[in-house]
Amino acid sequence: MDDSILLAHGSGGKLSHELVEKKFLPFLANPALNRLDDSAVFEASGRMAFTTDGYVVNPIFFPGGDIGKLAVCGTVNDLAMNGASPLYLSLSAIIEEGFLLSDLERIMQSIKKAAEEAEVSIIAGDTKVVNRGQADKLFITTSGVGTIPTGVDISGANARAGDKVLLSGTIGDHGMAIMSQREGLKFSMTLESDCAPLNKLVSQMLEVSSRIHCLRDPTRGGLATTLNELARQSNVGIAIEETRIPVKEEVRAACELLGLDPLYVANEGKLVAIVDPADADKILARMRRNTYGREAAIIGKITKEHRGKVAMKTKLGPSRIVDMLTGELLPRIC
Amino acid sequence: MDDSILLAHGSGGKLSHELVEKKFLPFLANPALNRLDDSAVFEASGRMAFTTDGYVVNPIFFPGGDIGKLAVCGTVNDLAMNGASPLYLSLSAIIEEGFLLSDLERIMQSIKKAAEEAEVSIIAGDTKVVNRGQADKLFITTSGVGTIPTGVDISGANARAGDKVLLSGTIGDHGMAIMSQREGLKFSMTLESDCAPLNKLVSQMLEVSSRIHCLRDPTRGGLATTLNELARQSNVGIAIEETRIPVKEEVRAACELLGLDPLYVANEGKLVAIVDPADADKILARMRRNTYGREAAIIGKITKEHRGKVAMKTKLGPSRIVDMLTGELLPRIC
Repeated sequence: MDDSILLAHGSGGKLSHELVEKKFLPFLANPALNRLDDSAVFEASGRMAFTTDGYVVNPIFFPGGDIGKLAVCGTVNDLAMNGASPLYLSLSAIIEEGFLLSDLERIMQSIKKAAEEAEVSIIAGDTKVVNRGQADKLFITTSGVGTIPTGVDISGANARAGDKVLLSGTIGDHGMAIMSQREGLKFSMTLESDCAPLNKLVSQMLEVSSRIHCLRDPTRGGLATTLNELARQSNVGIAIEETRIPVKEEVRAACELLGLDPLYVANEGKLVAIVDPADADKILARMRRNTYGREAAIIGKITKEHRGKVAMKTKLGPSRIVDMLTGELLPRIC
Repeated sequence: MDDSILLAHGSGGKLSHELVEKKFLPFLANPALNRLDDSAVFEASGRMAFTTDGYVVNPIFFPGGDIGKLAVCGTVNDLAMNGASPLYLSLSAIIEEGFLLSDLERIMQSIKKAAEEAEVSIIAGDTKVVNRGQADKLFITTSGVGTIPTGVDISGANARAGDKVLLSGTIGDHGMAIMSQREGLKFSMTLESDCAPLNKLVSQMLEVSSRIHCLRDPTRGGLATTLNELARQSNVGIAIEETRIPVKEEVRAACELLGLDPLYVANEGKLVAIVDPADADKILARMRRNTYGREAAIIGKITKEHRGKVAMKTKLGPSRIVDMLTGELLPRIC
């Protein structure tokens, strides 16, 4: 089968080299990667951020993206959430025997495009092939390094009472796109993943304010879980207002149909920012000028009360405690 | 099932946090990891090396190691093969639903031990869980960064005619340990993987000589494939002598039984060094004083003839061209 992945593509021998030369380098070529040594070399100085994430999303192609775009954006975003400028990524693929080479090319094309948009280079890689039935099509793990500009100190532990909570746009888009695709749901409007690199949005926010305390992208577990993490890490309370949280009409409809709460549905192109109240408005204004922050909103504030917990003022008036996700909403969402 | 991995352990919610707090942090704790931000922060300066590798070895426990030790050593070694001192690793696990927590703990223990020996910290991590039958037990991807000391310039492209080729010890140990375990072969002597971190061996070699041109660990594809890679990358010929290549008696016996050539069998604790002939003897002497280099030998030299190819003088006298591995010797060897 000339059109699909063979076990020998993972042997480290001739076919492995051919795979790298014909299917990876044409998309990713850069001087550091082209050396094909055991590790890639780059110049660094100062504080660096380092992160890793595995991607097992099912299906691997979905409206708004695919596993390749997701893997690049996810790792870029994890770096950006520490205020870092992402520079270099590594890419490790675990491929099931029989995977179509045409699908691999499509994914490499999408990796190339996402890396170009985020202005990162993929300088290290690895490929393993497992027998049919020992993995589901394709898993990708990306790691990344980036530089943290002087003076930037962003951490989930830095929220202070009085800070404002900003959200960069609508929630639930990625999760509902995957779910509707997987369950074969048909809606009159297409649900599309929000999968996007947020590093430029973050650097623009940092240009207008040095008082950004926390940044986090609400992926698995959704906005509710992310806010709970931040409340615990900073040992503060978070108070949000349901009516201020943007949700697309079609996402809300799909959630209602399936009995889901958009607060727990995964996002792949959104961020939560906790910022000094004095700078909140100008940060918000700057976010709204970026494509990925057009619908940004101030959704709440940090409080001294109910430390470690998130309280939400509901549409109907009263407040309720919003907990982390318990159980599993949807396996293999990212 | 309290004793095994559930899909909810990969949800990003409560059980994910519990898994990190109870099963990962107790083994890996360090200040950078403990922050639990989206990325870890470290200080850097100068030239850095960056690498990644996925591990899908089957079985996950084998004589001489397990997938955890392999993942740490493999990435440490890839950094060391550029002359870098490994500093920080990331660890991304893809786990099959139902995987035993006791096995996970055993693997974490072994990761901790290997990281301590190599003096690296694991500062970033991720866990994904996939449904039963969608992965085989556990896959681990490790990435790593390290610093390259000033003046060190090691690359597969740096071999020059006249250089000597050194090998740090016996070949085929890892591959035959996996194969005998998997095929249920019984030998009178136990075959054990050579899985080991080689960074200290490399730094000791660099202490006695600045004229180390290439380093590479002959993993998948074995010594033959690695030498072919180096011959191509440097556009030189490599001439080796079969009688100088150390092979354990039990490995040779197992290879003969299975009709395999040890030249193509994977190693996980060996390195090939191509060095200036003037320094070869003192580098060899230093290697032999390290546990992982006790059986080091000079196995050949770099030539201007047969560029891009490896020629081996056989036991019987005549030379033959030794090619890269073609096909697949053994899937999921690492």
